[in-house]
Amino acid sequence: MPGKKVEIICGYHAVRHVLTRRSHEVLEVYVSTGRGHSAKLDDLLHSCERNSIAVNPISRAKLDRLTGTDHHQGIAARCRSVSADKQVTITDLCAGNLSESSIILVLDRVMDPHNLGACIRTADAAGVAAVILPKDHSAPVNATVKKVASGAAESTDIITVINLARSLRQLREAGCQVIGTADDAAQSIYDVDVTFPPVLVMGSEEDGMRQNTRNHCDQLVKIPMYGSVESLNLSVATGVCLYELQRRITENNI
Amino acid sequence: MPGKKVEIICGYHAVRHVLTRRSHEVLEVYVSTGRGHSAKLDDLLHSCERNSIAVNPISRAKLDRLTGTDHHQGIAARCRSVSADKQVTITDLCAGNLSESSIILVLDRVMDPHNLGACIRTADAAGVAAVILPKDHSAPVNATVKKVASGAAESTDIITVINLARSLRQLREAGCQVIGTADDAAQSIYDVDVTFPPVLVMGSEEDGMRQNTRNHCDQLVKIPMYGSVESLNLSVATGVCLYELQRRITENNI
Repeated sequence: MPGKKVEIICGYHAVRHVLTRRSHEVLEVYVSTGRGHSAKLDDLLHSCERNSIAVNPISRAKLDRLTGTDHHQGIAARCRSVSADKQVTITDLCAGNLSESSIILVLDRVMDPHNLGACIRTADAAGVAAVILPKDHSAPVNATVKKVASGAAESTDIITVINLARSLRQLREAGCQVIGTADDAAQSIYDVDVTFPPVLVMGSEEDGMRQNTRNHCDQLVKIPMYGSVESLNLSVATGVCLYELQRRITENNI
Repeated sequence: MPGKKVEIICGYHAVRHVLTRRSHEVLEVYVSTGRGHSAKLDDLLHSCERNSIAVNPISRAKLDRLTGTDHHQGIAARCRSVSADKQVTITDLCAGNLSESSIILVLDRVMDPHNLGACIRTADAAGVAAVILPKDHSAPVNATVKKVASGAAESTDIITVINLARSLRQLREAGCQVIGTADDAAQSIYDVDVTFPPVLVMGSEEDGMRQNTRNHCDQLVKIPMYGSVESLNLSVATGVCLYELQRRITENNI
């Protein structure tokens, strides 16, 4: 039954975000008994009080088990997931949810939850319309991803697809230009002609995107490397590309 | 006595970098006995063989102690540090080592070694002339920083200064424009007029730069936030700003 799933969110930013945006879906909040006192925590506890949400003290060990990580900053929330029928699909996106100034981000083969979370945070900051993840070639959006994303996993439309190649075809048919990033691309992101709205595809730091994903790109671009390191961290590369696309949208009044 | 200090470098990229760039300063290499076999490791061991550098198998526990971290990827090197008399100073920079297309990065109050390492990697990729760190308001450039920096801590000129305000004054007198980043700045990095060469100042993710550092900036800029998160990760913000400065250098043939 859609709309009845429960999820655990952890980390200060992620919990605060869910309390701000959809407090009616928060069932309870857990605070580690070993956690120090701070103004940030007070703020969050007042927000629970205002919204009549129970706050349960819990040992650090139990919180580790509950969240499946030890990077929870001593705070977590149990809340109802967004119902499946509320989630945006590629078909919704293509059927009118896109404007010329929309940017879509595809993350192919990002299996590390920290990298995935950092990319989702960056994507939200850069104002993407949606993030697309291939179901079998991405880390799942779990508690660690949500914590690293600092609330962005709740505020950004994340679309998980079974067949990424088919989704890219749909987006191209709807008028999007698919721009893939690859270290061996001939052209730089700063030189490429972009037709808006663009779909930016990032692959994993180690292996890039899959060959089949690459085959579905209209253009391949690279970020110029001016020093001696071979590449940027994935979320940095994602930020540099997304902000360059946003800069063009602003500059060209798109 | 300058030039005789020894340092430990760990992580695959950092060790490979030091073997490529200054193999004559590598005294020995340590490989964890529990480390799996890989083509990358073979490559590195061949490089040791070619340069007649001893490779010592060592337990993971000993390697943890030697490097002061458990994030060493099972590999470390002991090598002579760059001698103090070879290190670039602010006075060197100001006395002719700067061109209009130089970018200098200042990291004020970056106390987290992972953030510092990620920023140094990004700075190297974006081609900065030097990274300036205030001695008492920065994490030290230790093994963790070097590992996260993926070799960039060895290839980038890192200048540690006692008095950052004085260094900023020196750089301004030498013709640099000091651009500080702050969430509350009125102007965006995309709108600011830049006089080249620029000095970009980034503060910590939590508290920004110190007030006294802020007082020494010619301009304050922010990165536009298009979504619901309040800020970018520090290394992502650093990448976005540095690449925007590089884009202008290229576009204006500076």
